[in-house]
Amino acid sequence: MDLASLETPVPVIDLDVVEANLARMQAYCDSHGIALRPHIKTHKLPALARRQVELGARGITCQKLGEAEVMVEAGIDDILMSYPLLGAAKAARLAKLAPRARFRVGLDNAQSLATVAEAARLSGAEIGILVEFDSGTARTGVMTIEELLELARAARATPGLRFDGVMTYPLGPKARAFLDAALPRLKAEGLEPAVISGGGTPKAFEAHAAAPITELRVGTYIYNDRMTVAAGHATWADCALHLHVTVISRPEAHRAVIDGGSKTFAADVMPAGMAEGYGYFPDYPEAKLERFSEEHGMVDLSACARRPEIGEVLRVVPNHVCPVSNLHDRVALVKGGQFQGFQDVAARGRSQ
Amino acid sequence: MDLASLETPVPVIDLDVVEANLARMQAYCDSHGIALRPHIKTHKLPALARRQVELGARGITCQKLGEAEVMVEAGIDDILMSYPLLGAAKAARLAKLAPRARFRVGLDNAQSLATVAEAARLSGAEIGILVEFDSGTARTGVMTIEELLELARAARATPGLRFDGVMTYPLGPKARAFLDAALPRLKAEGLEPAVISGGGTPKAFEAHAAAPITELRVGTYIYNDRMTVAAGHATWADCALHLHVTVISRPEAHRAVIDGGSKTFAADVMPAGMAEGYGYFPDYPEAKLERFSEEHGMVDLSACARRPEIGEVLRVVPNHVCPVSNLHDRVALVKGGQFQGFQDVAARGRSQ
Repeated sequence: MDLASLETPVPVIDLDVVEANLARMQAYCDSHGIALRPHIKTHKLPALARRQVELGARGITCQKLGEAEVMVEAGIDDILMSYPLLGAAKAARLAKLAPRARFRVGLDNAQSLATVAEAARLSGAEIGILVEFDSGTARTGVMTIEELLELARAARATPGLRFDGVMTYPLGPKARAFLDAALPRLKAEGLEPAVISGGGTPKAFEAHAAAPITELRVGTYIYNDRMTVAAGHATWADCALHLHVTVISRPEAHRAVIDGGSKTFAADVMPAGMAEGYGYFPDYPEAKLERFSEEHGMVDLSACARRPEIGEVLRVVPNHVCPVSNLHDRVALVKGGQFQGFQDVAARGRSQ
Repeated sequence: MDLASLETPVPVIDLDVVEANLARMQAYCDSHGIALRPHIKTHKLPALARRQVELGARGITCQKLGEAEVMVEAGIDDILMSYPLLGAAKAARLAKLAPRARFRVGLDNAQSLATVAEAARLSGAEIGILVEFDSGTARTGVMTIEELLELARAARATPGLRFDGVMTYPLGPKARAFLDAALPRLKAEGLEPAVISGGGTPKAFEAHAAAPITELRVGTYIYNDRMTVAAGHATWADCALHLHVTVISRPEAHRAVIDGGSKTFAADVMPAGMAEGYGYFPDYPEAKLERFSEEHGMVDLSACARRPEIGEVLRVVPNHVCPVSNLHDRVALVKGGQFQGFQDVAARGRSQ
């Protein structure tokens, strides 16, 4: 099968671009003495996780245990769960994995600490704890140094657990301010963090200057997308995943309809003021992917001198690439411009 | 396993509510002499498609051939593809299915007509054609009566095809105006449509008055969601699908974080001005699901007198239920308040 005859819609991954993106981030981390711990949520593909480790990554980051189960099965042996696991079912599942890989869990509350302690007890394996602090997302993460100290002490005091350090996202001024205040307090109690883990592709290449991190968690950099390009952190040539779609209708001269909508691209919009619409057409830069329904994408061709015809296959860079991987059972791989075969997105939908 | 111990996040379907929703729509269609042809995109479950047909539906509607392949395998024998299929690969796949079920295809261009003609030729089975016209979506659908007539004539003149009628969505004043003008023209050429197919859950129960349809395509009515409730077409008690999620963090008194985000709920927002946020908590009506990241949902509890604790399982009605089915490999089924087991979402991700 050749690339042009792939059925659409289909995500197509250019492995040459992937390789360049991985090498660039690894080199950045190496040059600053930062351990790279890529977030596999972006690709959910065991083969790419293994490639990240081969190139020098310290291990990987997962959010859900379902992702970690797939990755341990694929031979990955060092995993940070950057997510507060909670409850007996999660403890039992983590216990099954813990003897097979080095695990750390990032968390922000005592109940999650108890879950991880139970996993350590059940498995007999020691599990590391990173305490997550809030640096501006208002998502998970403790809000005060007192809470951080309390959880760090509890981790140290709990059999089977090991206090390894702290974790946050993003790496802005709030991260530095929190660390500046927290690190002396931790040190004073003999709780100096072995790991200071920071995350986020958008500011990845400024991470060394943003905060005194020892480890970088990034996901999107492997593929890039319209958001990372719009933010100035990548170019269109750095985008490794394109949705290939077909023009299935041209009801008006200025309108094309493609065979992918929110069930193919996800419905993530760009940050306010950054750009409109749902994707970028490298071969028709003036075309605007202005609306989705579930299986249709409506493209405004008004600004296009040359316009695609019915039946033409178009390449699209999605706004946000991570949820795209989570919609498709398989992706097509390309190397040297040649179709290499399909690969199952093994951790797709592993949301538990 | 009981309902309370299901791992989260998980979509839970109340089959008693499903049954009532199906019966209500079937009774409406029966009382107005309209054929019901439910859109299975909402549930993607063979068992529920079969139940819709058992209760009196004329057949089903699919958008993608991948959905139809699953449904033919499950024994469904009457399918409308409400989507302009295009290209040799689609023709070959439709040809494999056409001998196993009565197929119609809705389309708006000559290239798609040629694809369906090729499927008919390859299979030896006759395939019906509905010409889609635009009634306000600016999506697919011809814009003029002349285009409609041209495609209807082509369908009649093409071996293996049968002109069966017309199709549109939504059923507003534009649909009626187009039909009022088009029907005499079609009749004058001996092309009176056997089928006038209209779609859309929001106006479903006014469909008989909106336009002279013979067939109704509706999907969301089987589950309902925050959008159909906000539009006044269903009540919270009519919502058959809830995401069950767990509170995994309470970083501040007014904020809870749940273990589902855009990879669990999809990121569909409510129509402007209708309501904010991403879901409704029946047990905490004042809670606001205000933000998502991929695996986190941020809940503002400011207005809640009673607030959920870490570890508590919450039920959420999503904004738009159709993309939720497309994110999860399986759903949990409940009847009489009791967990019945899981069912694979067999047509999930069948976007080709």
